[in-house]
Amino acid sequence: MTDRVTGLPVVGMVGGGQLARMTHQAAISLGLSLRVLADAPTDGAALVTPDVEVGAADDATAVQRFAKSCDVVTFDHEHVPQELIKELTAAGAAVHPGAEALRYTQDKRAMRQRLRDLGLSVPKWSDDPDALPRPYVAKAVSGGYDGRGVWFVKDDDPLPDVDLIFEERVAIVHELAIQVARTPSGAMQCWPVVETVQRDGICVEVVAPAPRLSTALATEAERIATTIAAELGVVGVLAVELFEAPNGLLVNELAMRPHNSGHWSIEGATTSQFEQHLRAVLDWPLGDTKPRRRVAVMANLLGGPNTDLAVSLPAAMAASPTASIHLYGKGARPGRKLGHVTTLGDDVVETRERARRAVAVLQGGA
Amino acid sequence: MTDRVTGLPVVGMVGGGQLARMTHQAAISLGLSLRVLADAPTDGAALVTPDVEVGAADDATAVQRFAKSCDVVTFDHEHVPQELIKELTAAGAAVHPGAEALRYTQDKRAMRQRLRDLGLSVPKWSDDPDALPRPYVAKAVSGGYDGRGVWFVKDDDPLPDVDLIFEERVAIVHELAIQVARTPSGAMQCWPVVETVQRDGICVEVVAPAPRLSTALATEAERIATTIAAELGVVGVLAVELFEAPNGLLVNELAMRPHNSGHWSIEGATTSQFEQHLRAVLDWPLGDTKPRRRVAVMANLLGGPNTDLAVSLPAAMAASPTASIHLYGKGARPGRKLGHVTTLGDDVVETRERARRAVAVLQGGA
Repeated sequence: MTDRVTGLPVVGMVGGGQLARMTHQAAISLGLSLRVLADAPTDGAALVTPDVEVGAADDATAVQRFAKSCDVVTFDHEHVPQELIKELTAAGAAVHPGAEALRYTQDKRAMRQRLRDLGLSVPKWSDDPDALPRPYVAKAVSGGYDGRGVWFVKDDDPLPDVDLIFEERVAIVHELAIQVARTPSGAMQCWPVVETVQRDGICVEVVAPAPRLSTALATEAERIATTIAAELGVVGVLAVELFEAPNGLLVNELAMRPHNSGHWSIEGATTSQFEQHLRAVLDWPLGDTKPRRRVAVMANLLGGPNTDLAVSLPAAMAASPTASIHLYGKGARPGRKLGHVTTLGDDVVETRERARRAVAVLQGGA
Repeated sequence: MTDRVTGLPVVGMVGGGQLARMTHQAAISLGLSLRVLADAPTDGAALVTPDVEVGAADDATAVQRFAKSCDVVTFDHEHVPQELIKELTAAGAAVHPGAEALRYTQDKRAMRQRLRDLGLSVPKWSDDPDALPRPYVAKAVSGGYDGRGVWFVKDDDPLPDVDLIFEERVAIVHELAIQVARTPSGAMQCWPVVETVQRDGICVEVVAPAPRLSTALATEAERIATTIAAELGVVGVLAVELFEAPNGLLVNELAMRPHNSGHWSIEGATTSQFEQHLRAVLDWPLGDTKPRRRVAVMANLLGGPNTDLAVSLPAAMAASPTASIHLYGKGARPGRKLGHVTTLGDDVVETRERARRAVAVLQGGA
């Protein structure tokens, strides 16, 4: 199965979005070429790697055939059904992360229960909405991302007709995230804790390292991430979204793949989350994760009034010559996640300003 | 011709080696996907980009057909014949750099004459070997690279039967290189001067910025590079190899494309030579070129006794966790240029040690 030219292993990723696209960029450096199972030939990763199968992530035949052509199978999203992952593993495929770990990203109720059992702090939650004071938060047990599947419920708002859990509205001081990579051998490496800024439930900005965090909380975040990775048997990159509440850190969400909160690491850290994910799923030694500069700011590009990237891209380059611009190969539409911009520097305010300027021009609002 | 999904232009590169491979990585970030005319489907770039034509760089039909499918055509090497480039331009293709500029990378006699006419210092040279004291250097007028096409002649050594020029053996203090990118509009950006270390005529190591260089000589190198780029009408990245001689800088060689002496810029500079080459040939604003850390060291990986990368790659990761390893998708063979390693740091000796350690393990000599 190894690559016939280099003798190196073949890594396959189910899902062909921007995470697979950026993983392919990292794969190229390591002498690899990512194999991708994409929904469509116009998916972001399918446009840039030669080794693409088109098929749905829940099509057992397509996924099984794909897995047979790879040494290791990993994921760009959480949409492969549990049973299918178990069948792949039973048939002898190396699947990382495995079904047992992925379960906790596909079922929020199981995740909340498991974290509670591990003694980790989570927001107060219940299966019974009447157990919580209003306003509370309703969350779909499965399928939510980027603000979808989350409802802020007050008074007599009707509830959506899906399986839900209910959580207190946390008094958030800051939103944070931490990533850790873990190999099948159990080696782990954390990146620094980052601060994330959300708008309408979507992450718009990440500052790395989190600029207003005590050393004690940074250490606590690392303990939480390594505990989850080890206890749940995660292989690959794990992202833990955290609330900094007045009484300490609460775990909000988990993702077991490269994650938006780690895009800063492409330029900002010695080893990016994409390369580290490949090293981890291949059980290769993990790379150093130290930041290259004091501050990294990652700003997401959500489509704005401008829909002609051929005009706005060079304009953004002129406006912010230090910005590292990443586009995901999508046609521009208002609100669509089209890419991101990273800047490095010594000062948070000045570094953020350069990233925001590039995004504003790309959106056409500036 | 623009990409049907993103509306962005299509850049085509003639030649599918490691320079095209790394240019594709940079293209992905900009929302592009490099189109490649490769000699063979197993060329380094052809393995990682979906958009490949197989054809020889001197096959007029293949190159002309390829050019018709691109908005801009550029090069990974100097092997496209002058006449063919002129025909492409006459047929309306945007070809960067153009035939007039590329001529000086394909004909060393023309290059030496032109640089002399520009008032730039070059080694003493002649068409007549008897005009120079022995030992001297014989250089093939065309076709040389990586130590090929250069002969150190002493006493009655026979001369190779190709068109030659003859040069003095320069008392070299250090070998240096500087790169500049230039757009069709005439904008230019230099990277810092680097020191290059050669073994058997092949570059084995680059230290950026050159650690033992006076400010006066750094300024002089920048003046030389920008003069050549502007006067020769170079579009894209120009690399100027320099000798630091007791009396000052002498121009040794020119390359009008991304160059081995600039690989450090992938991790080490705000904008890499590969992204900058794309920006330049598209006439987009150039990116900032400042170093991210005080020191970057790039060490080339020439194949050693080990020929099993699947063993040596993880071993090198374990031995040097801060090393950014780049493999070119080639099968390992002794002496073959298989990749490179870059490390960043604050101290030249310590940073170089980490790069050398990774290369030694990859070669299997450690």
